[in-house]
Formats: sequence, structure tokens, C-alpha cells
Amino acid sequence: MDREDGNSGGQAATAFSRRRIDGDTFERMVCDNCGFVRYDNPRIVVGSVCVWGERVLLCRRAIEPRRGFWTLPAGYLELNESAEAGARREAWEEARARIAVDDLIGVYSLPHISQVQLIFRARLESDDVSPGPESETVRLFDWRDVPRRALAFPSVHWALDHYRQVKDRRDFAPFRGPPDNPAA
Amino acid sequence: MDREDGNSGGQAATAFSRRRIDGDTFERMVCDNCGFVRYDNPRIVVGSVCVWGERVLLCRRAIEPRRGFWTLPAGYLELNESAEAGARREAWEEARARIAVDDLIGVYSLPHISQVQLIFRARLESDDVSPGPESETVRLFDWRDVPRRALAFPSVHWALDHYRQVKDRRDFAPFRGPPDNPAA
Repeated sequence: MDREDGNSGGQAATAFSRRRIDGDTFERMVCDNCGFVRYDNPRIVVGSVCVWGERVLLCRRAIEPRRGFWTLPAGYLELNESAEAGARREAWEEARARIAVDDLIGVYSLPHISQVQLIFRARLESDDVSPGPESETVRLFDWRDVPRRALAFPSVHWALDHYRQVKDRRDFAPFRGPPDNPAA
Repeated sequence: MDREDGNSGGQAATAFSRRRIDGDTFERMVCDNCGFVRYDNPRIVVGSVCVWGERVLLCRRAIEPRRGFWTLPAGYLELNESAEAGARREAWEEARARIAVDDLIGVYSLPHISQVQLIFRARLESDDVSPGPESETVRLFDWRDVPRRALAFPSVHWALDHYRQVKDRRDFAPFRGPPDNPAA
């Protein structure tokens, strides 16, 4: 669950102003020179609770934010990628894990960081896992050994808890994460 | 379900090149002048199948694409907005409808247009609806009168069909739309 730091890797030299364009409800960033409209959109994080028998895969982050803390294999959905394919890619990138993606366990809206997280449950195709470039190490934990105080993000807690709650169920509604704010 | 035409309302005068930046898996659009990285991300569409008793709300589009065709109240999620709040906003913007958002009926990945659609079922708080600026007209249809051949987008068909399939159910897994491509 990476790159929660915003939409850009740097600062644009071009001057953008916040303006309301014709027919739109919201103000947008518009280039003062050419009128290019930069739509900033919320982003989709995809990931999975990957299990091998009674053990769960976690990755210790090699990068900021939350370097050294444990997380699920998860990250931003890419262009031209389904949510399921994105979850498989992240499992490979972060833990060299091949997975079978099953049910959706969480659809977490995080409006304060403009994210929607889609978290699946998944089965590892083998216990042969190893760290990708964004992980210091990866490990299969017995549930009782999950390092609860060293998890990287709140949504890792939610996903692990929700996984456990629906463990023996099929055809269930995904959890929707933090309580919705009806006034928003 | 608007603005399926890409991420920009115009063309940038600034020169961007597709380059692989350090530590990234994918090539990104990088400004030749200042190094600004423009991450293009898939976008989230939120919407709902809104019912009033045995009738369903549809909106006849006043704008392209698919002007004159019927759609659900749906559109792009905005920054700092939960999925549920976005669905409520779209119902208001397109049909001046106040709704109570219930279960998630569809999580449709559309990788060819880099969208994930989150479609809820919702109850209208009254049958007092009227067109917003993007709708020519809005109407509550008996199910048998839904204009199946004049629906705007495939996902409108899916959502209406899926709504009907789970109509009398609670706590069900949302449909995941078009078959996933395991090779993707």
C-alpha cells in the first residue's frame, strides 16, 4: 500500500490555477497557458489477504512510508488492469507470490487520502515466496504470530480482521471499512 | 457515467515523454522540462440502482457520449469522497434525487477504459425527481417498461440485471462484471 503521498512525483513548473470550468460542479486545476485541465481523481488500491493453509503472507516494507512495518501485498491499480489482475501483480511484485484471487472482503473508502481500497482473499499457489524490490522480507505467519503492533496501515488491520470474520463463509457482502459519513 | 473520454479536457502544450523512472515497474509520462511525473490512474465510477417501490430511476442523457440514451445516476468519484457519498451526489446531480445507499451490487472492472465501477442499490427517499443539468429527463420505470434497447452503456444492463438477481437477498457478494482475464 504504497505512494499515499499524492498524485505527483515532483512539482510542475507550469502554472496551474484552480478554476471552475463550464458545466462542471467542482473547481479543477487548469493550466494558465494552454487550458489543459488536470483532473485529480481518487485512486484505487488493490491487494489481498493471501493464505497458505493456516498461514497468512505479510511483507515487511523496504520503502517509506512505514518502512520496516508489515503490510499486505497491495498497491495502486494500473491503467488497463482489472482489480483482480492488479491484486495478482502486486502479490508478484512484493512477494514473488503466485495467487488465485477469490472473494472481495473489503471495499474501503478512505476519503481523507482519496483512496478506495479493494481487498480480496486469495490462495497462494505455493509457499515459495521471496521479497520483491519494495519488501525487506516476506513471511508466512501463523495467525497468532501476526505482528499486530507492527502493521503498516489501519487497512491492514481491517483486512486481516475481516478475513477472519468471513473465513468459513461464501457469498458474503464485502466490508465497507470506516463508517461512512452521511453528511459528506 | 460521464467523461469516459480520458483524463484531460484539452491538450497540454508542455512536452511529456513516456519514460521509466527509477524503481518503478511501468513507464510514466514525465515532463521534459521539469521532471513532473503525471501518473495516469484508473478511475472510479460510483452509481446506484435507485428504486421507489417496484419502479427504478433512469436518466436520459443530455450530454455526449450516448446523448438521448438512458442511464443510472452514476459518475466519477471525486477527491475526498467516499464511494457511498459519491453515489448520493450523483443521484442528486443527475436526478435531484435523495437516496439511501444500501448494498454493493457490482464491482465492475473495465480495463479497456481503465475504470472500476462501484454500483450500489439504493432507495429513493421520495418519488419527487427531476432532471439535473446532465439529464434531458428522468423517469421512474416499471421494470417491464425499462427501455432495454436504449440503455447508454453495457454496465447499465449488468447493474439492472444484477439488481434483479439479488432483489430479495441480503449479505451477498457483489457481481464482478465482465469475466476477468487471467492473462492480464
